[in-house]
Amino acid sequence: MKRGILVSQFSTLENYFTEKREAHLEELKQFLRIPSISSLSEHKEDMQKGAQWLADSLSKAGLENVIVDKTSGHPVVYADWLHAEGKPTMLIYGHYDVQPVDPLNLWETEPFEPQVRDNKLYARGSSDDKGQVFMHVKAIEALLQTVGTLPVNVKLLIEGEEEVGSPNLEEYIENNKEKLAADVIVISDTGLQGPGQPAVCYGLRGLCGVQIDVKGAKSDLHSGLYGGGVQNSIHALVSILDSFRDAEGTIEVEGFYDNVRPLLEEEQEAYKALGFDEEELKKEVGVNELFGEKGYSHLERVWVRPTLEINGVFGGFSGEGIKTVLPSEAGAKITCRLVPDQDPDEIVTKLRAHIEKNKPVGVTVTVTEFDKGKPFITPFDHPAIQAAGRSYEKVYNVPTAYTRGGGSIPIVAAFDEILGLPVVLMGFGLSTENFHAPNEHFHLENFDQGLRVIGDYYYELAGLSKEDLKK
Amino acid sequence: MKRGILVSQFSTLENYFTEKREAHLEELKQFLRIPSISSLSEHKEDMQKGAQWLADSLSKAGLENVIVDKTSGHPVVYADWLHAEGKPTMLIYGHYDVQPVDPLNLWETEPFEPQVRDNKLYARGSSDDKGQVFMHVKAIEALLQTVGTLPVNVKLLIEGEEEVGSPNLEEYIENNKEKLAADVIVISDTGLQGPGQPAVCYGLRGLCGVQIDVKGAKSDLHSGLYGGGVQNSIHALVSILDSFRDAEGTIEVEGFYDNVRPLLEEEQEAYKALGFDEEELKKEVGVNELFGEKGYSHLERVWVRPTLEINGVFGGFSGEGIKTVLPSEAGAKITCRLVPDQDPDEIVTKLRAHIEKNKPVGVTVTVTEFDKGKPFITPFDHPAIQAAGRSYEKVYNVPTAYTRGGGSIPIVAAFDEILGLPVVLMGFGLSTENFHAPNEHFHLENFDQGLRVIGDYYYELAGLSKEDLKK
Repeated sequence: MKRGILVSQFSTLENYFTEKREAHLEELKQFLRIPSISSLSEHKEDMQKGAQWLADSLSKAGLENVIVDKTSGHPVVYADWLHAEGKPTMLIYGHYDVQPVDPLNLWETEPFEPQVRDNKLYARGSSDDKGQVFMHVKAIEALLQTVGTLPVNVKLLIEGEEEVGSPNLEEYIENNKEKLAADVIVISDTGLQGPGQPAVCYGLRGLCGVQIDVKGAKSDLHSGLYGGGVQNSIHALVSILDSFRDAEGTIEVEGFYDNVRPLLEEEQEAYKALGFDEEELKKEVGVNELFGEKGYSHLERVWVRPTLEINGVFGGFSGEGIKTVLPSEAGAKITCRLVPDQDPDEIVTKLRAHIEKNKPVGVTVTVTEFDKGKPFITPFDHPAIQAAGRSYEKVYNVPTAYTRGGGSIPIVAAFDEILGLPVVLMGFGLSTENFHAPNEHFHLENFDQGLRVIGDYYYELAGLSKEDLKK
Repeated sequence: MKRGILVSQFSTLENYFTEKREAHLEELKQFLRIPSISSLSEHKEDMQKGAQWLADSLSKAGLENVIVDKTSGHPVVYADWLHAEGKPTMLIYGHYDVQPVDPLNLWETEPFEPQVRDNKLYARGSSDDKGQVFMHVKAIEALLQTVGTLPVNVKLLIEGEEEVGSPNLEEYIENNKEKLAADVIVISDTGLQGPGQPAVCYGLRGLCGVQIDVKGAKSDLHSGLYGGGVQNSIHALVSILDSFRDAEGTIEVEGFYDNVRPLLEEEQEAYKALGFDEEELKKEVGVNELFGEKGYSHLERVWVRPTLEINGVFGGFSGEGIKTVLPSEAGAKITCRLVPDQDPDEIVTKLRAHIEKNKPVGVTVTVTEFDKGKPFITPFDHPAIQAAGRSYEKVYNVPTAYTRGGGSIPIVAAFDEILGLPVVLMGFGLSTENFHAPNEHFHLENFDQGLRVIGDYYYELAGLSKEDLKK
């Protein structure tokens, strides 16, 4: 161990975790028994219960200023410990709400009756995200109980609406900027790269999208009487849709790639080193060939390259057999995954211009915008990212993967934007753990090792100055 | 009158029609009261009743060998009169079945309670096709009652399944080739070009089509996790669909136009002379601009040029809002209207080759064929066509329009193919008469004038030799 926690402290911490393991699991099970499903109004009281349970647990751990704070939706839970004078402050974000559980009949055991089988804890929320939030609470408690202090200042902000898109959190952050002021944001709501393979995620893609509605004649026409003489709305639509991408997967919207931040050589090397198995992926998704932008590896395509995907298309007759209709209306939904430094508003403007330019004659085209989310990145070589990598390596004893995510967590971009802080995504889940599906579970070896990684990371951060942490 | 009926005979005929007008209309109303809806099984007995009523009417008119003949579906009615030795034989085709009547609440009077309002006869089947079939029956009756003989031999084949696609007629024709042998086929089931504007239709487009099903990954994928790295089935589909046609409306399937019979200069002139109002059409269908194959007028586009229309498209998410799915499956239905001398089987083969050639990587594509129909044409200058034009002109006192139809009546092509005869489409309906819709009606001035046109046409045909009529 080069930096971070002292060997003696680490050993004390380890003994503590080992000794308390059963007690911790019993406690986590209590948390998991609360059906805090944010999307279902019948669970409104359970949301309150979940927030209160967490608040009590934070107080018990030794955190201060604990509050179950109101929002326009479900409450957020805030707590802090701010006695590491001169040291950096970390803001830990997570969520205590969970996904719905249907189809219930596919669960082997009840989703809110946690059960350990084969060293895996089965319950809704075990991996996403109660289990991971609980690890931070216990890491803090352990340090306060053993060392008697924390090496850094800590603030926790645990929300109850992550699974419904965090509709009220941005406003909460805006209204509590000072209270939430920190030097780094740490989120444990993602996953390892694979079993035994730690990963720090330092970037996520953003999102924007539009619906395109094409209207030709005022009503459907008989293709015998009018076919060949009046524009067909579906022909017009597919002509627009096909113009978005060339045969080699490059998006042909003018200026689409303008602000794409080039991939660093180190990043490229790091991705290559992951040895991603494209053959395995083909088998997983059931295709003979992968397809994506020419000149990029699969990981580059889904992590660092922007996309334009057609998510749905509709128009005319889709029943059985034939109907010789010349359809009046057709439409499609498209979304773009964006990467740093693309701006969703700018991309939508470019999409609109492209559609206008490629609009065939004889139809009117309406473009409707969807919700947008900015991409996010903390530079690969940022000290907070590299420190997280070191903490993983010390515990897992293998090199950490530095990854990006292809999906979007809009609230991460909001943190980035409002608070202007580096964000470190250090997750302990596995992609096979059925979060959002029946039989969600959490591999307890990652619970055990993750507690140690988190404990170490607090010390790693303490070794950095506020200046080091500036983004 | 240059040819055809003698003036004295025409005048006798005219007096007969005038004298019997009310009696004829009362008789037609009886026919129209029978709800012979071929598509609805609850009307099976009405179909039998309709066939029997027609057979009785044919016997009463003086026709011979009248029979209600069985098929695998609804019966056909056959009758003949074959005493014009050495003269040509005409086969008159029509149908006694009608379309369903829903939505019933949009009918101003009951569909099967015929009513004359404003010199229009309102009832289901008044225009399509009972009214027009009845005109032939009464024209024959009039000639037999007044002149005492017919100038040509006549056979009638009136079916009961036209509105359901004539599923059994082709077999019936094949099995009764000798019985149906003739020199020309006359069909009154189409329309005038406009009020007071007679038209002879001498060609119809054929039809073929396929469904294209595209499959990418074995299930829908998350566009964040896989987007940009796995082929999107809708992207693949629109790329195929967009490849069918260029921006100027030309079909880009290799060899698609190979067998298209060039338009004769006379035909082109004839269409121009119709003075088709494209501005009126724009208003009718509600578009700012018409669109079709470059270098052709609207009438040429819908009458003599083949088309490829997308009739339906489907895939992915079509609900409200956004769903960031990378869809596994997408599909489309396309149909081609074909013109002489395109062959539906050959065109489907070319479509398949085109799809195979334009298939993007990373997907499998399945092509399913729909029912086919051949295009049909009787040459513009065929004596039977020109004779029909003359008969119209004598009665309507304006030049006849020589037209083609953009739609398909597959059974016409079957007649053409099996019996190898010229087909003359001489209709008396108007496109505004709501056939297939509520408040179907028939303008009685065309009933009156049509009886005279038909009477004259029998004499016109009598002036032609069997040799003249060979196709």
